[in-house]
Amino acid sequence: MFDLVIRNGTIATASDVFAADIGIRDGRIVQIGESLPDGARTLDATGRYVLPGGVDSHVHMAQPSGEGIRMADGFESGTRSALFGGNTCVLPFCLQQKGQSLREAVTAYHALAEGQCYTDVSFHMIVSDPTPAVLGQELPALVADGYTSFKVFMTYEGLRLNDAEILATMDVARRTGALVLVHCENEDAIRYLIGQHESAGDVAPRAHASTRPVVVEREATHRALSLAEVVDVPVVIVHVSNGAAADEIRAARARGRKVVGETCPQYLMLTADDLDRSNWEGAKFVCSPPPRDKQEQDACWRGIEQGVFDLFSSDHCPFLFDDPSGKLNARGRTSFRHIPNGIPGVETRLPILFSEGVMKGRIDLPRFVALTATNHAQLYGLERKGRIAVGMDADIAIWDPAVRRTIRHADLHDGSDYTPYEGLEVQGWPVTVILGGTVMVDEGALVGPKGQGRHRARAHSPLAAR
Amino acid sequence: MFDLVIRNGTIATASDVFAADIGIRDGRIVQIGESLPDGARTLDATGRYVLPGGVDSHVHMAQPSGEGIRMADGFESGTRSALFGGNTCVLPFCLQQKGQSLREAVTAYHALAEGQCYTDVSFHMIVSDPTPAVLGQELPALVADGYTSFKVFMTYEGLRLNDAEILATMDVARRTGALVLVHCENEDAIRYLIGQHESAGDVAPRAHASTRPVVVEREATHRALSLAEVVDVPVVIVHVSNGAAADEIRAARARGRKVVGETCPQYLMLTADDLDRSNWEGAKFVCSPPPRDKQEQDACWRGIEQGVFDLFSSDHCPFLFDDPSGKLNARGRTSFRHIPNGIPGVETRLPILFSEGVMKGRIDLPRFVALTATNHAQLYGLERKGRIAVGMDADIAIWDPAVRRTIRHADLHDGSDYTPYEGLEVQGWPVTVILGGTVMVDEGALVGPKGQGRHRARAHSPLAAR
Amino acid sequence: MFDLVIRNGTIATASDVFAADIGIRDGRIVQIGESLPDGARTLDATGRYVLPGGVDSHVHMAQPSGEGIRMADGFESGTRSALFGGNTCVLPFCLQQKGQSLREAVTAYHALAEGQCYTDVSFHMIVSDPTPAVLGQELPALVADGYTSFKVFMTYEGLRLNDAEILATMDVARRTGALVLVHCENEDAIRYLIGQHESAGDVAPRAHASTRPVVVEREATHRALSLAEVVDVPVVIVHVSNGAAADEIRAARARGRKVVGETCPQYLMLTADDLDRSNWEGAKFVCSPPPRDKQEQDACWRGIEQGVFDLFSSDHCPFLFDDPSGKLNARGRTSFRHIPNGIPGVETRLPILFSEGVMKGRIDLPRFVALTATNHAQLYGLERKGRIAVGMDADIAIWDPAVRRTIRHADLHDGSDYTPYEGLEVQGWPVTVILGGTVMVDEGALVGPKGQGRHRARAHSPLAAR
Amino acid sequence: MFDLVIRNGTIATASDVFAADIGIRDGRIVQIGESLPDGARTLDATGRYVLPGGVDSHVHMAQPSGEGIRMADGFESGTRSALFGGNTCVLPFCLQQKGQSLREAVTAYHALAEGQCYTDVSFHMIVSDPTPAVLGQELPALVADGYTSFKVFMTYEGLRLNDAEILATMDVARRTGALVLVHCENEDAIRYLIGQHESAGDVAPRAHASTRPVVVEREATHRALSLAEVVDVPVVIVHVSNGAAADEIRAARARGRKVVGETCPQYLMLTADDLDRSNWEGAKFVCSPPPRDKQEQDACWRGIEQGVFDLFSSDHCPFLFDDPSGKLNARGRTSFRHIPNGIPGVETRLPILFSEGVMKGRIDLPRFVALTATNHAQLYGLERKGRIAVGMDADIAIWDPAVRRTIRHADLHDGSDYTPYEGLEVQGWPVTVILGGTVMVDEGALVGPKGQGRHRARAHSPLAAR
Repeated sequence: MFDLVIRNGTIATASDVFAADIGIRDGRIVQIGESLPDGARTLDATGRYVLPGGVDSHVHMAQPSGEGIRMADGFESGTRSALFGGNTCVLPFCLQQKGQSLREAVTAYHALAEGQCYTDVSFHMIVSDPTPAVLGQELPALVADGYTSFKVFMTYEGLRLNDAEILATMDVARRTGALVLVHCENEDAIRYLIGQHESAGDVAPRAHASTRPVVVEREATHRALSLAEVVDVPVVIVHVSNGAAADEIRAARARGRKVVGETCPQYLMLTADDLDRSNWEGAKFVCSPPPRDKQEQDACWRGIEQGVFDLFSSDHCPFLFDDPSGKLNARGRTSFRHIPNGIPGVETRLPILFSEGVMKGRIDLPRFVALTATNHAQLYGLERKGRIAVGMDADIAIWDPAVRRTIRHADLHDGSDYTPYEGLEVQGWPVTVILGGTVMVDEGALVGPKGQGRHRARAHSPLAAR
Repeated sequence: MFDLVIRNGTIATASDVFAADIGIRDGRIVQIGESLPDGARTLDATGRYVLPGGVDSHVHMAQPSGEGIRMADGFESGTRSALFGGNTCVLPFCLQQKGQSLREAVTAYHALAEGQCYTDVSFHMIVSDPTPAVLGQELPALVADGYTSFKVFMTYEGLRLNDAEILATMDVARRTGALVLVHCENEDAIRYLIGQHESAGDVAPRAHASTRPVVVEREATHRALSLAEVVDVPVVIVHVSNGAAADEIRAARARGRKVVGETCPQYLMLTADDLDRSNWEGAKFVCSPPPRDKQEQDACWRGIEQGVFDLFSSDHCPFLFDDPSGKLNARGRTSFRHIPNGIPGVETRLPILFSEGVMKGRIDLPRFVALTATNHAQLYGLERKGRIAVGMDADIAIWDPAVRRTIRHADLHDGSDYTPYEGLEVQGWPVTVILGGTVMVDEGALVGPKGQGRHRARAHSPLAAR
Repeated sequence: MFDLVIRNGTIATASDVFAADIGIRDGRIVQIGESLPDGARTLDATGRYVLPGGVDSHVHMAQPSGEGIRMADGFESGTRSALFGGNTCVLPFCLQQKGQSLREAVTAYHALAEGQCYTDVSFHMIVSDPTPAVLGQELPALVADGYTSFKVFMTYEGLRLNDAEILATMDVARRTGALVLVHCENEDAIRYLIGQHESAGDVAPRAHASTRPVVVEREATHRALSLAEVVDVPVVIVHVSNGAAADEIRAARARGRKVVGETCPQYLMLTADDLDRSNWEGAKFVCSPPPRDKQEQDACWRGIEQGVFDLFSSDHCPFLFDDPSGKLNARGRTSFRHIPNGIPGVETRLPILFSEGVMKGRIDLPRFVALTATNHAQLYGLERKGRIAVGMDADIAIWDPAVRRTIRHADLHDGSDYTPYEGLEVQGWPVTVILGGTVMVDEGALVGPKGQGRHRARAHSPLAAR
Repeated sequence: MFDLVIRNGTIATASDVFAADIGIRDGRIVQIGESLPDGARTLDATGRYVLPGGVDSHVHMAQPSGEGIRMADGFESGTRSALFGGNTCVLPFCLQQKGQSLREAVTAYHALAEGQCYTDVSFHMIVSDPTPAVLGQELPALVADGYTSFKVFMTYEGLRLNDAEILATMDVARRTGALVLVHCENEDAIRYLIGQHESAGDVAPRAHASTRPVVVEREATHRALSLAEVVDVPVVIVHVSNGAAADEIRAARARGRKVVGETCPQYLMLTADDLDRSNWEGAKFVCSPPPRDKQEQDACWRGIEQGVFDLFSSDHCPFLFDDPSGKLNARGRTSFRHIPNGIPGVETRLPILFSEGVMKGRIDLPRFVALTATNHAQLYGLERKGRIAVGMDADIAIWDPAVRRTIRHADLHDGSDYTPYEGLEVQGWPVTVILGGTVMVDEGALVGPKGQGRHRARAHSPLAAR
């Protein structure tokens, strides 16, 4: 007797598409077959796609952002929004503050997340203060505890590491079999350009893009790839925004390096012109790297189609727009450089790629599943996530490809006050979402309990494991 | 009640690995789950990998080769050898002779294959005489009948097409949604170099490699990609042997072209030095493109690991070595250029990649499955092949990863009298092979009947479909 | 006592700029120094640049063009126009017709040129019928006679050679130390595209550009470079129009190949949009390869600035516009493909590069001299041409950098009835031109006699010499 | 009446080769012509090449090197050695120490050089402490005074600038029209690798090369090019040692950047294996970047032949070998990282390139002159140096191409105690060297006075001038 059966759907994995029923028991998929018997509950998925719940391996929640500006989502609203967007697992960052121990940071984030989550979560570390104690003891211990990936920044004062620190942190990854993610932008070059722009009185949001041109990202990408080559570790280049950085990834692979590339909806759908919208509305689109132009969007699509990018993430990083603690804080109104960097997107990531990618014929369903769920789970050591297969967690999103929606922030579930995709028409939506066998969203209605989502320790990444 | 159940194995698809039982009925997979009930027959796969049967999309069987030289395999021995090598489907070429109608060629090959096959087969066309009738009527009709791919040659007198003919043939692909494969070597350059070598009295087998250097393949690859760009069709570049040609594929993709690359065991395992073996034994390694050197082998591995190559095929093309109608025919002894081009390999393809790739940690099991089965089926429109999923044909190979074998031709099942891999030690072997639910090889013994394999019409390639 | 002294000018060579007087005797430069004594005649060049007379190594004169269409310039008007444009030597092509012997062709062109020339001339061969006799005897004999370079075409029916013929012709170059020039466009691809366009009724001049897209030139460039690599000879890629072809040259050099690139004014100044001018005026801009767009113009400038292109030639190939035997011949009005390919430019080449390049700061005077005179002479074995140095032929152009002119065909001296640069404003003009010590143009007036220019045999190219 | 006449030589400039006499008066070339009258002194150069005296734009003299280690050459021995090697002008670096004002540094170096020099000298700055005062006042003032170029280091503790400092220094170049040179190696990566090697007890000289692999130079090269792109200034990449860094220069040019590349004899003639010589003799070859291998030597030759490198310099940086203050200082014997970096080479630079390049047919005489004299003078604003032309300083080297010599340190004139090229056989030697019309070396004998060489202020580089 199954707890739950999903009948008559079209199932897609990262490689295959087929019609079958799914039988679920004790939170896991136990049977996939034709004409399964009914379960305690049986859902009819006729005409629908039954996909692995999305895994979003790049989100920010409850993260402090300096100067009293707070992120618009904690774990409750953030995971609720993720869930409604078809996700069953997100990987937020656990940010080490300067002077803080990593373990303290982890403990603090766990406290924030505990009992609040609508999806499973699993933390990456952000290493911002790589002291000998952090690199020598704390980080290896955390890797052993299942926090098997960490991120370093090449930009943002207070977060950025210099090359020596990056090398030392990568060396921990080498020794422990952990995986390093890098945010690639050259901070010094950005600050030089900010100085030029501010001297010229050019302080509007559009200058955010001009002070972070492609060359700044290309340089840092080549450097990150080179540092990983020196240490001999694989590396994830996150949120690639343009063709030149993608070419650096291509070139590194041709040299035999193990590199995973990630891109995000904002690099397919937005451009720097959006930062030029009137009344400081451009601030809504301030994120780093910034959106580029049509040509770079095309380059990002090519990267998606051709495997330069194997991860499609949201980089969800929400701030309120019209609020003293958000995008339009008092200092943000005086210069673009005080506008907090980041945009919401955890709920819209999947519908955008489904509509623009699958429905428009750029990618097929298996590639969609790989880019949005399987590859994330596989890369980051979530061995029972991101797949529809016997034995896996019953994390499933049922998509209705016939639904047409216009994206409105009013309909979304995050804690921000806007979406950068307001007005975008999409086709296809995840109408029912199941977490570990529990129906959380049922035909668009939240039915599952807060706290159903739990933190998941992770195995070593197969890419990095020694 | 299942006809056949495979119990306790570790199943791998092109994306996932999991433990489950498989239930088979009426030749198809109908259930994948935990603790399935026994079937009419139940196989225990404890400690074994249960993989889709291999699909080898590049084999030559029963193909005439000029001057009275005959290929060493017809469909009986060829498919038997394939079967023992873990394959359940092969795609041989159906060669149009100059002056022959395509339909006649197809009919003739069907006659040869009918009732002889141990695996399923599906024909690609080779277009060698693209007359208006062929391009205008015959080829479109054959595409409509399920022969949805065809190959053109840029080398071999009598087979090669000039650029105008290639363009015209590609244009048929464009109009019919068929897929074009190209053998890329510049015939004129080869003949120029043959002239140079023969003038210098350099006629031993090693000269076969010297007269087909990398530049000759790189040029033709760039040309084939450019002609496909002119016509705006996707293209498959078959049997890539080196890094420069792989780079041409990378560059074409960066320009936004749809290109699929294929490589073969000979480019990973052999080098041009093998053509230098004494007593004309070098003739055993004469194939085109020729094997290169260690550095190019590494480049081919990188292409496999990084997705430049999505197909791993055998290019099985067997000739007898020491026989008047084989490699050492009377003229072959006088000059390398009369040695028929091609080597056997349909039985060793999978064990070599399994041992050298999976067991040595270069690729994981899903990538192995993708490269050897799923991608072939998916690309060439075999919608129920190459996958372990509900509804698919029950074409399955059960691998024992613990078996260690030394490859000896005496143990193989093809019609040739040698293997180029004689003495190679491998780990892992397909011990049981199931075709459409029928156990054909059972723990190493042939138990299934000749004729069990049938021809399969194919759908349009999703890559090429309009 | 000098025959002629040029006093007070600023002299530029391909490497140096300096103030000095030049003393000329018996047609050669015999002294360069400060305060030379007066000669039989003394010219004051105060405020002017004294440069080597231009050498234009790519011009067509008196060449037949099929279907009764005749070229608008014979040697008289062609060399007169060249002279007024600051040139003292041009290298026209001597075209072998199918079935004609090369020696006959040479004899015929000599007959046409004899006594007609205002500048020196030296013939390249065009090999269109590479019979064994041509390649075995005639061509080697002509190389020995000082015709040390020849051109092959990859386009134009009746002229194009196939790869085997190109290889055979390059092999003659290898054996004789001659230099091969290649016109790189894939004829078969062009004809395929012409078919597509004509089928669609797209027959206006603009289609000339659409049927010869960049890919067609890039492919042929890569092929020509590869064939030269097979034979192991240096090669000149003429009239490169775009960045992708320039990149092929860069890549070949990085592989260690000897390659010289050439570009022309039309690829800096015109675009495919010019072919869209109303009333079939677009026909005035029909040349091959066609002009591209702004981005490719920029790529060509970069090639000039960075040494990808070491030759800047006119590819002067003049036809009348509004004449039954010209661009608007009866058939040309029915389809672009009957419009003869080629535009006039021998008189405007130098002023355009001087004005757009030197005066606008893109290149300096030595680079101008190298690109327009010295490199041509050096590459093609004209050992006493293209340089201002003691012992060299006194071939000199005196430029007034202060002159501003608007280019009007009415002011030019060729045999055509239009210039593609009508209305272009330039700064700088060659006001006085001296050939072998004889003042031919004196402050803008023709004063030298017809027939003063002679044919010059050439030494082997240092690039090709063995 | 000339002061000096050089008769019957073969003169080469950076573009031309011709036979003529040279007449010199008041230190300058005033006449070049046939059959000049005798001067106060007349030299016969029959059978010899008369070339511009070498300009070596990259030498270190009298520079402190930390820990009490002193450089083996001051200005007297350094310029004497340069002179004997066919040079008439060298550009040493004037090193700013941390905390020191740039002007003080300049004053100190002038004091050291005053009255000591056998060749002309002109200082580049090394900016090691870019304080606001240095960047705001001192550096612009020095540029105005004729110190129009400065170098920054990306390696060497105490010298290296971080990216922010490089950007700020480049910005001064942008504003003042000065030219920036960059030593490209990533210091942090080197220190990481040194740590790895020292931990493993790998402290012999060979580890110097292993801790500075190609990736470390490639990374820094790409970064320097990117920073220059951000600021929009041209840049000189000094002492490139390998093909990957050369490719970065090629790529930057293809993006439209102005970049000049330099390489040195050590990258053509030495390999990392030389650092492995027994008895710590490997220390003699410790320089940065380190010599690589045969393949990278070939890549450097290609860069020389094809214009990737337009400067060929010595990077003369001499230390004693067997001396407490040299290579084998007490700490140097304990670990390679205390061996001072740098090798002597100012005297051997020209004979090596002449013999290996010109005599072996890789480059012609004009390219030799360009690479060793003219390009240096032209790039760095030495308007009357590096050229044989009327009005230029009479700085001339007379080469005997028939001389064969074996390089022995015993025959050289520097202050070191070894040459890395001991035993190398060369053909061609500068037998007579003239500085400003004064014969300094006469058929191999020093005849000119110490102090004849003077410091030369420089104009802005034409590449950098606004």
